[in-house]
Amino acid sequence: MKNIEVCLTPDLIAQHDLSGKIVVVTDIFRATSCMVSGLANGVASITPVMTVEECQQLQTQGYLAGGERHAQQIEGFELDNSPFSYMTEQVKAKKIAMTTTNGTLSINKAKPTAKAVWVGAFLNLSTVAKALAKEDTDVVVICAGWKGRPGLEDVLFAGALVGKLSSSHQIADDSALMAARLYNDAEADLLGYVQEASHLKRLKNLSSGTDIPHCMQIDLYDILAVIDGDELVVA
Amino acid sequence: MKNIEVCLTPDLIAQHDLSGKIVVVTDIFRATSCMVSGLANGVASITPVMTVEECQQLQTQGYLAGGERHAQQIEGFELDNSPFSYMTEQVKAKKIAMTTTNGTLSINKAKPTAKAVWVGAFLNLSTVAKALAKEDTDVVVICAGWKGRPGLEDVLFAGALVGKLSSSHQIADDSALMAARLYNDAEADLLGYVQEASHLKRLKNLSSGTDIPHCMQIDLYDILAVIDGDELVVA
Repeated sequence: MKNIEVCLTPDLIAQHDLSGKIVVVTDIFRATSCMVSGLANGVASITPVMTVEECQQLQTQGYLAGGERHAQQIEGFELDNSPFSYMTEQVKAKKIAMTTTNGTLSINKAKPTAKAVWVGAFLNLSTVAKALAKEDTDVVVICAGWKGRPGLEDVLFAGALVGKLSSSHQIADDSALMAARLYNDAEADLLGYVQEASHLKRLKNLSSGTDIPHCMQIDLYDILAVIDGDELVVA
Repeated sequence: MKNIEVCLTPDLIAQHDLSGKIVVVTDIFRATSCMVSGLANGVASITPVMTVEECQQLQTQGYLAGGERHAQQIEGFELDNSPFSYMTEQVKAKKIAMTTTNGTLSINKAKPTAKAVWVGAFLNLSTVAKALAKEDTDVVVICAGWKGRPGLEDVLFAGALVGKLSSSHQIADDSALMAARLYNDAEADLLGYVQEASHLKRLKNLSSGTDIPHCMQIDLYDILAVIDGDELVVA
């Protein structure tokens, strides 16, 4: 059996040895859901970067710029952080530079040491799980969370992945165990489970509209999104 | 309504503003269970310290020394980290100096900023909850965890406390929400829920004997354990 661990927030990455492992980064609301939606709908590549300035630099090279700061669109950027913005005719075959508060940070923290960095969302859950089951490699799921704190939706995704991998990967820490149990608890009504949490301040401005229901759909797409150099692409 | 937050490991304390709040530190396996058991059975006070050397220094002043390093008794110390060691005739009316890997660290991190630091365990759950309900103060529960990582049993205690305070304290972060849901899931068979996790490496050396069943007993004692200066005492 291989191992699976869950890192509940990027602030805890130092506790996990990522070397030689496949890291799956998830930021369900909404970076990795945007990325998977975009790549599944014909975006050529998405380059996750840390700063607004790096996005602007890539804009001058023909990239579209996307992302958010404090859940708000950034001035001069073509794309915000709604997954639907990444699914239009405008973005097909385009390269996108994307900066987000939490998801990009996690990807860039993992890149220097991990064997591979993949991006996961409910939207491509089973594809990620099947690909991991085939690899002879331990897994660490990094939940992007929110300003360093754990986010329920990311932990639920981690738990779903732990469950899907139960025949190939053993649970290697309490965080993975807790994530799996929370997902079991949530599975029957995943969207309702997350929406119950919408009284939390951080979700208030996300609680209307169609983004959350979109992001909570399981297996809408069958692509695997992997970091290749500086870009996230379809494997 | 007041607020209740849960800090899943001491490594995440920086994300929580503790000023003006009551901090409840929990380390179910086993520091805070030892402390509550000892104080409930007549120990005069327990002084949590960071280092073995500080314990030895207090030993020269007549304190008994207790604690563990990597779950092992420390040479020259009278007490290990089994709660039963804190419940003997030998320790009655004595002052104890105690160092542990996780619990003491959390207490000492919280002391400089919190309004008050209390110690909680399943053993005195309802007493802690009732006292918190009477205070006009927000609460942060700090889970001591294990080497910086979250520990299931600590998170379950936090969740139990969140549940007990549902009419006076609103859930203020996702960690508190997840803890409460995990406790709901576990409540019907709390000991079994934790023991299912005993295949985890860190719990293997705890899985025999009577320590775990003792620590998982709810409301065995009705004392409130609070930090007063350098000492933990009965309020």
